[in-house]
Amino acid sequence: MERIVSRENKKVREWYSLRLKKRRDETGLFLIEGRHLIEEALKAGVVQTILYAEETCPFDFADTVPVSESVMEKLSANPSSASLIAVCRQTEKYPVHAERVLILDGIQDPGNLGTLIRTAVSFSFDAVYCSEACADLYNDKTIRSTQGALFHIPVLRRNLEDTVEALQAEGFFVAATALDSSVPMKEIEACEKMAFILGNEGQGVRRELIEAADRSLRIEMNGFESLNVAVAGGIIMYHYRKQ
Amino acid sequence: MERIVSRENKKVREWYSLRLKKRRDETGLFLIEGRHLIEEALKAGVVQTILYAEETCPFDFADTVPVSESVMEKLSANPSSASLIAVCRQTEKYPVHAERVLILDGIQDPGNLGTLIRTAVSFSFDAVYCSEACADLYNDKTIRSTQGALFHIPVLRRNLEDTVEALQAEGFFVAATALDSSVPMKEIEACEKMAFILGNEGQGVRRELIEAADRSLRIEMNGFESLNVAVAGGIIMYHYRKQ
Repeated sequence: MERIVSRENKKVREWYSLRLKKRRDETGLFLIEGRHLIEEALKAGVVQTILYAEETCPFDFADTVPVSESVMEKLSANPSSASLIAVCRQTEKYPVHAERVLILDGIQDPGNLGTLIRTAVSFSFDAVYCSEACADLYNDKTIRSTQGALFHIPVLRRNLEDTVEALQAEGFFVAATALDSSVPMKEIEACEKMAFILGNEGQGVRRELIEAADRSLRIEMNGFESLNVAVAGGIIMYHYRKQ
Repeated sequence: MERIVSRENKKVREWYSLRLKKRRDETGLFLIEGRHLIEEALKAGVVQTILYAEETCPFDFADTVPVSESVMEKLSANPSSASLIAVCRQTEKYPVHAERVLILDGIQDPGNLGTLIRTAVSFSFDAVYCSEACADLYNDKTIRSTQGALFHIPVLRRNLEDTVEALQAEGFFVAATALDSSVPMKEIEACEKMAFILGNEGQGVRRELIEAADRSLRIEMNGFESLNVAVAGGIIMYHYRKQ
């Protein structure tokens, strides 16, 4: 294939538009950068096209397009370092035989959202449910923070009230994190099917969801009583990981 | 005091220069923004001057200076939201009777550095030692990520090889986090004096420090084996918190 050198090329403009959430939603496509993420996306079978500004493409893949450094720079969210970009397809995977589920209520920071997904995969969680108010999953910062974990776990955007009800009907014990009227983590024993609700960085879990949950849980602290939500999620997922 | 309205005012230019690490190092001063951080800094007694773009200053403090919105916008790292800025003094506090110590070897991301300090305070750690290669402590992003915890714990920039040796001489058990040749966390029992070394986001803990430590420790994972360093630190600090 011929190398694309013009930043105004029609294809380039289409790919560039994927940096906007609106276009990602319309097309069902998104961009990822760098060798590690592309390797993970290839394993998951979601890559459509690989663009490269190197001599040769390091991946043996059907649809690869050489582009100039100037085109790469236009498309990249981290222009100084990018030499590989892949156009990927958004796919909804569904959990099969889930035992550990993470529920995210309005996580606003893309770094926190991505880190929580990464941690969920490391502790073998089976699915992540996000409210509509969560940061966009296909935003560059979210994807980078997942370190590719995004491709290895079903992440579903859903109405969380319905989700909690459906999980409870399937026999899940649902715990919401909260500081008030909550039980210290060590008092809640692990059981077969568990779901954990984490909330917005400023407001925490919404009242309706706390009420819908089976219990409210808190991480035992001394003094300052302030944890980043991704850190809190890590502590909980480690504690209740499948053995 | 008369309201400062010009962005070119000499004082304004001096405060503005504190957004550069070089000037912060030279003057021993730094800026913080927002009511919550200023409250924490006041408790710690490190505030020199409070600048406000509101009608009245919400703090009863000796040295307050009214400034125009335009001056506030120039000084702020988050111009859309700022209406309060404090000029603070960098102070080195020293740990007294330490039992839990965090050692940070080249943490590059200011968000990770700040989050680790915040978590250390929440789990009653007594001190944080940072290598020279760590992100700047007085950078806006680091301070925001600490949520004010920075003012409640000694954070010392030191040569870590010397620090590990000194801690061991004081009877500390020093554990480095590492994936290879390491022991799962559950096999290392808590003892009276413990220090934990966390490493750079990409490279981990430097070989020299791993060798200097008493043991290498790893967090038990299934599968993906990838944790953000602030999440890993949170899990370890929770696990070994003082009871």
